[in-house]
Amino acid sequence: MLKVLISGCNGHMGRVVAQVCREAPDVEITAGFDLLGAENEEFPVFSSPAEFPGQADVLIDFSSPAALPGLLEFGTARRIPLVLATTGYSEEQLAAVDTAALTVPIFRSGNMSLGVNVLTALVEKAAAALGDGFDVEIVERHHNRKVDAPSGTALMLAQAAAEGLPYSPEYVYDRQSVRRPRDKREIGISSVRGGNIVGDHEVIFAGRDEVIELKHSAMSREVFASGALRAARFLSRAGVPGLYSMKDLVSQII
Amino acid sequence: MLKVLISGCNGHMGRVVAQVCREAPDVEITAGFDLLGAENEEFPVFSSPAEFPGQADVLIDFSSPAALPGLLEFGTARRIPLVLATTGYSEEQLAAVDTAALTVPIFRSGNMSLGVNVLTALVEKAAAALGDGFDVEIVERHHNRKVDAPSGTALMLAQAAAEGLPYSPEYVYDRQSVRRPRDKREIGISSVRGGNIVGDHEVIFAGRDEVIELKHSAMSREVFASGALRAARFLSRAGVPGLYSMKDLVSQII
Amino acid sequence: MLKVLISGCNGHMGRVVAQVCREAPDVEITAGFDLLGAENEEFPVFSSPAEFPGQADVLIDFSSPAALPGLLEFGTARRIPLVLATTGYSEEQLAAVDTAALTVPIFRSGNMSLGVNVLTALVEKAAAALGDGFDVEIVERHHNRKVDAPSGTALMLAQAAAEGLPYSPEYVYDRQSVRRPRDKREIGISSVRGGNIVGDHEVIFAGRDEVIELKHSAMSREVFASGALRAARFLSRAGVPGLYSMKDLVSQII
Amino acid sequence: MLKVLISGCNGHMGRVVAQVCREAPDVEITAGFDLLGAENEEFPVFSSPAEFPGQADVLIDFSSPAALPGLLEFGTARRIPLVLATTGYSEEQLAAVDTAALTVPIFRSGNMSLGVNVLTALVEKAAAALGDGFDVEIVERHHNRKVDAPSGTALMLAQAAAEGLPYSPEYVYDRQSVRRPRDKREIGISSVRGGNIVGDHEVIFAGRDEVIELKHSAMSREVFASGALRAARFLSRAGVPGLYSMKDLVSQII
Repeated sequence: MLKVLISGCNGHMGRVVAQVCREAPDVEITAGFDLLGAENEEFPVFSSPAEFPGQADVLIDFSSPAALPGLLEFGTARRIPLVLATTGYSEEQLAAVDTAALTVPIFRSGNMSLGVNVLTALVEKAAAALGDGFDVEIVERHHNRKVDAPSGTALMLAQAAAEGLPYSPEYVYDRQSVRRPRDKREIGISSVRGGNIVGDHEVIFAGRDEVIELKHSAMSREVFASGALRAARFLSRAGVPGLYSMKDLVSQII
Repeated sequence: MLKVLISGCNGHMGRVVAQVCREAPDVEITAGFDLLGAENEEFPVFSSPAEFPGQADVLIDFSSPAALPGLLEFGTARRIPLVLATTGYSEEQLAAVDTAALTVPIFRSGNMSLGVNVLTALVEKAAAALGDGFDVEIVERHHNRKVDAPSGTALMLAQAAAEGLPYSPEYVYDRQSVRRPRDKREIGISSVRGGNIVGDHEVIFAGRDEVIELKHSAMSREVFASGALRAARFLSRAGVPGLYSMKDLVSQII
Repeated sequence: MLKVLISGCNGHMGRVVAQVCREAPDVEITAGFDLLGAENEEFPVFSSPAEFPGQADVLIDFSSPAALPGLLEFGTARRIPLVLATTGYSEEQLAAVDTAALTVPIFRSGNMSLGVNVLTALVEKAAAALGDGFDVEIVERHHNRKVDAPSGTALMLAQAAAEGLPYSPEYVYDRQSVRRPRDKREIGISSVRGGNIVGDHEVIFAGRDEVIELKHSAMSREVFASGALRAARFLSRAGVPGLYSMKDLVSQII
Repeated sequence: MLKVLISGCNGHMGRVVAQVCREAPDVEITAGFDLLGAENEEFPVFSSPAEFPGQADVLIDFSSPAALPGLLEFGTARRIPLVLATTGYSEEQLAAVDTAALTVPIFRSGNMSLGVNVLTALVEKAAAALGDGFDVEIVERHHNRKVDAPSGTALMLAQAAAEGLPYSPEYVYDRQSVRRPRDKREIGISSVRGGNIVGDHEVIFAGRDEVIELKHSAMSREVFASGALRAARFLSRAGVPGLYSMKDLVSQII
């Protein structure tokens, strides 16, 4: 059994992680951490990792950047691998993660969904194969409450395309304000917002008389929890300290 | 038999119109007009309408705005209905078309494809039915040589949505430069450019847990020629002077 | 306030209806009915309508065909309009519904989602406008546990297309076993099954060099509950006995 | 300059190949072969390869299976590499191709489009990465005159998925006649027919709360001619006798 600690266990994503763990036959929730330390009949909840006396195989964090110092200290001191699924870290925080990863295995990814990360790997390969004669464009769709555009995942996909392309691309977000044909090096990134769409990403390779489209649609945020659990299994097998990401997990299989 | 005159008969669209007329069992090409007056084994070609001595049921024009004065004079003097499929007219030219339409039936549309115009009618109805609880967004795709964005057809679709909506929408072309949730009144219009895509238009209605998408794809410019011929048949039946558009043609059937 | 009774209130859809009612500012749940009569802190639950002593504006039923006789007796005796969102009624049961509708307003639809029913209305209009020169095809997608194919909604869409078409169509479910070109009168209906897709329906109008696609995607079953509540509001305003459906609701606005 | 021979030069695809060669700056059409041996101002046309006295770098064939014996004799005797883009060969003919490939480089593929073959490679990788938790389905669309279903390309994609999957799949073409949930090992293959759609292929990986779609759309048959020319360049560089396919060409870059 994989013994899992859930950091941020009473937040929205923390509860989804707990649900996914509960449904997995090979997983056991040892304890949860949450600032408020609310009650939980199923597993003990501590207000911080420092207060947890026991042992576990891996910790999954979906809390906030503020929790990072406590998590890194806990992970390195107790030698418990960390899956950091929280986003929005500062440069200093990312550097601290790098340092901690010299001591304990750490897994960090901007998007924890297996599907999105498989898509990302495919986009890099497609760009390498088609890049010369095809134009690359990205369209993403999200709900009407999302404040940033484009999505971090759209930028991750653009970056993957860039790594496959034989030229260094330039991202374009607005074509209305200019009046000229598309430059070969452009990657247009369009952001559609509406309803409560969880998240769709489409990468378009448009060539002469043929178009390839690679698309991912997420129907719920559960996919991020499932991906985090996959990462936890991967990390507990990795053993060796280091900074791992979904790219490592996917590259084993693609 | 419908006796058709083709203005701009040696241009790209003029030749496509001729081909579509040739394949239609109820149509006969009486003559063509082209500045260069090039030879044509099949039907006589004149360098301007003024030189054409005969009679016909309708004229289809896919030439350039410069040809307009000659066409309007010809149409009103000979009482020959005009299908004006050329785009890019000035305000003065549009006013001249209005005046001529008091004397002779004239058909003018920004997009001559039947499919696009049916889509436009459906979009207005869908906006009226869904508008309150759904967000409207438009994505259009065209080839990488198109210099303007968004396409005129995308704006026509946005206008159709606006007529059905219970509020006055605001068009948004770039979400990257702002950082706030979508305003209810926005219609986002995204322009994708790549390869030699003839023209795709998609109108998205995104609601709570459901999305409706209405989409048109053109595979060749022949659709504009076929639509112009439909307009010619419609106009020859209309009889009465007036300014007609695809909206009139479609509203007969939708 | 609209006073609502929920039949089947402890079933999956019943609970979703209760949630949607709770979030609507103009709605109040008066009572629920459920065979098991389980406890509920929020509103009283009776094991059958007959035991309910009070008054209400409308009843929404998402239970099973077996509950129909009790519901019809309750609705006609108490003059409480019924929204029947249960599917799978027998011919005899449908006849009993018709009879009861002479006494009390009854609303019944195979698919309660507003979006699907708007799509259905658009499909009929599109078929009327395009039918002669376009081929109609339908592709539906559902989760891998669905036992029937095609979906009832796909057949509803095919029926709507048929009403608009100038010919009587023939439904085709399998093209692998034949070896001949498509007959003009065919409507191909394809069923894709996979994952936990809630329900996607796409109607394709394929013409010469242009394709129109009308598509609906449901992201959760909440859309059926929201639609049932819309139906309840519609029915409470209708006043006059009769059999109503989503078609009546949509035709008011499209 | 690559000196190209075009077999079937007066057929539809042969003429498209000639056009693509004409537009390529590094290619020269040395001669064409066609049963009817019709005139051609641009390059000499012979009624069979045997009558051609000269030398060339590669031959591209888009004719018919009947031409195969003459082509193989020509290729092996003159040591001229052959790109066989004709489909519909018998088992005996395929064996003869294998034998000839011991003497001269031969390139043969069921679908000559680069895009389709890149898609095929991506599908195999995606199936390997996702196969365990995702269901695979294929939808293809073609024009209404196509007599066979599913398309050969759809079967090629299914085969590629099968190579990546951890189980041996079973192809399903009709779900209407059965009434049971999807078996894990099914690959549903749906064939949509309508209008003059050149060819769309979509492979769907449907998992829990996420879907990946990999899609190719061909807008004209020119993509097969461009692909055949790519194959010709690849083959002329290969040098060594052997049987090559688009898979070899794509695997160099993906």
